[in-house]
Amino acid sequence: MLNARIKQLRSAIAQDALQAILITHLPNIRYLCGFTGSSGAFLITEDRSRLFTDGRYRTQARAEVQGARVVIGKKAPALQAAEWLAAHKRGRIAVGMEGEHVTVATQAAIRRELPARVRIKPVSSIVERQRIVKDITELARIRRAVQLGSGLFQHLLRAIRPGASELEVAAEIEYQARRAGAEGMSFETIIASGRRSALPHGRASAAKIGNGFVVCDFGVILAGYCSDMSRTVHVGQPSLTARIFYQAVLEAQQAALDSVRAGISTGEVDAAARKPLKKRGLEKFFTHSTGHGVGLEIHEAPRVAAGQNEILAPGMVITIEPGAYVSGKWGVRIEDMVAVTDRGCEVLTPTSKELVTI
Amino acid sequence: MLNARIKQLRSAIAQDALQAILITHLPNIRYLCGFTGSSGAFLITEDRSRLFTDGRYRTQARAEVQGARVVIGKKAPALQAAEWLAAHKRGRIAVGMEGEHVTVATQAAIRRELPARVRIKPVSSIVERQRIVKDITELARIRRAVQLGSGLFQHLLRAIRPGASELEVAAEIEYQARRAGAEGMSFETIIASGRRSALPHGRASAAKIGNGFVVCDFGVILAGYCSDMSRTVHVGQPSLTARIFYQAVLEAQQAALDSVRAGISTGEVDAAARKPLKKRGLEKFFTHSTGHGVGLEIHEAPRVAAGQNEILAPGMVITIEPGAYVSGKWGVRIEDMVAVTDRGCEVLTPTSKELVTI
Repeated sequence: MLNARIKQLRSAIAQDALQAILITHLPNIRYLCGFTGSSGAFLITEDRSRLFTDGRYRTQARAEVQGARVVIGKKAPALQAAEWLAAHKRGRIAVGMEGEHVTVATQAAIRRELPARVRIKPVSSIVERQRIVKDITELARIRRAVQLGSGLFQHLLRAIRPGASELEVAAEIEYQARRAGAEGMSFETIIASGRRSALPHGRASAAKIGNGFVVCDFGVILAGYCSDMSRTVHVGQPSLTARIFYQAVLEAQQAALDSVRAGISTGEVDAAARKPLKKRGLEKFFTHSTGHGVGLEIHEAPRVAAGQNEILAPGMVITIEPGAYVSGKWGVRIEDMVAVTDRGCEVLTPTSKELVTI
Repeated sequence: MLNARIKQLRSAIAQDALQAILITHLPNIRYLCGFTGSSGAFLITEDRSRLFTDGRYRTQARAEVQGARVVIGKKAPALQAAEWLAAHKRGRIAVGMEGEHVTVATQAAIRRELPARVRIKPVSSIVERQRIVKDITELARIRRAVQLGSGLFQHLLRAIRPGASELEVAAEIEYQARRAGAEGMSFETIIASGRRSALPHGRASAAKIGNGFVVCDFGVILAGYCSDMSRTVHVGQPSLTARIFYQAVLEAQQAALDSVRAGISTGEVDAAARKPLKKRGLEKFFTHSTGHGVGLEIHEAPRVAAGQNEILAPGMVITIEPGAYVSGKWGVRIEDMVAVTDRGCEVLTPTSKELVTI
């Protein structure tokens, strides 16, 4: 599996007329060779691949890395890689580096390690383009992460009650996530109650939960892969207006889900989510984009947003998460993760979307 | 307070013959103007300062930012800043950028926004140099984070028992941290039991705790500031050898604490920690450095390691954390956070270091 990934990358670098590529972004390193340590550089040439790290990771690297030899050194891994490249590749060559991840200082230090005959060429999203379509191993891991994440919803329903603080609710589901084996949360848990539900990024605060909507947006990391889901519940009996507002967001979410299939653009999915809200005059309250790719990182390609031309392909995994927020009053967001298929999509998140009243 | 920080930075950039500096590293932005959002760029010229962010952070930025005007825009904040600079500063000028944080791709995009008369100059650790000495507000926050972190130790002692998994112990203290108001953990909790205690980076795993040492290394984030502490406990009656081994690490830790004072180098502190271990022939088992600075980031300057020439100054906050690890057998680490004073140091971590047997 990992060998296939390296092979695919080799053909991409050949197309870019590169003789080597130096990967330093840790999720990309993990994707390509399995190494999960916090210090590493992965060098791929036409015929060889090497993972450079330091002594702390000797045992771990040898256990984890596939499809590459492990080299342990004292220098920063990227500099070890540059040194190795200079010693092992003759002639005038070009090495690609990840422009969106390598800092100016690191590139300058690498430049100093390399002879003039080696040219550095910044490349853009070369591994990310590959990661956008998940393979079968990745889909299985994502499914497990989503299932663990969804299992937390029952704990959340038990923790949410009038008078509890948002932080207590977050603490409870994070505790249950850890007990269930999660490596951590995939982002800061959002528990936004009452007026705070109108904040799309309302991280759990010391605020006490009262009557009204509570937007809950959370995810876990399992075997490196992230989950992401949102549900909005209501404390106390919702007014008719609240029910209608919730229903409008739910329709928007369903419309977006219905639109997903291989061959259409993510911009079209975004438009599908906005249409039902527009019909009810609520479009202006949907102030963010409809979704994003999820995998080894919580936010990855593609963006599911207005005007995006990215075409969906089978095996892409995205969130569908429209929301509507009336500042100072309330907000609702409903989010599932889906895997794109030829004819539509598979909704990975099994949790019901009926409005729960607490 | 924040104005004083901006003023100090202005005098540093004047010394570097810069007319402006663009700060993009989020902890540095928080340090200088108080903004805690995840998307921002902070531009300082000789006489003006602007925080650029996007619409999601309109309310939050206006509430948080001190000493700078907030500008909301649609482009990436760093590009907004470049555009503003081009429009507001005439003539041939040089703008500093953080070489260790700005990526090659971002710098190229900024270059495209700027006219040729504006030169970009990468600078190194310009804000980090300033952050190395903590002011009175920061020391107060660090104290509170350390106290919250130390308070978790009692929960840890209750959670550690034969048959419990390392993950359950980690889940318990992370839960208690959240309940006590922590924003999160400052790094992945290390609970390394039995043979795993020999792994300096033994993140909590599914392994069941049996007899032997358990290295516990954890910290919390409170009001943005990190805590960091390690204690090693013993499950079951420790052998005489185990007691002696523990005692040796404790002596090393005490010797390093005794050596800390303004005016000596961090390399000397590292040497002080190694001396007692050397006397007992255990030096080779101390395989990492003695400590590091802590503040808005869990690892910041100065490094407390062999050969480092950084001179300690009053107000620096560092960890003192020697350890000894016998591969396949066991490991011990003991860590406090300390604030450097004129004549010595103040140990911030109040938790006892007597060997606890469970």
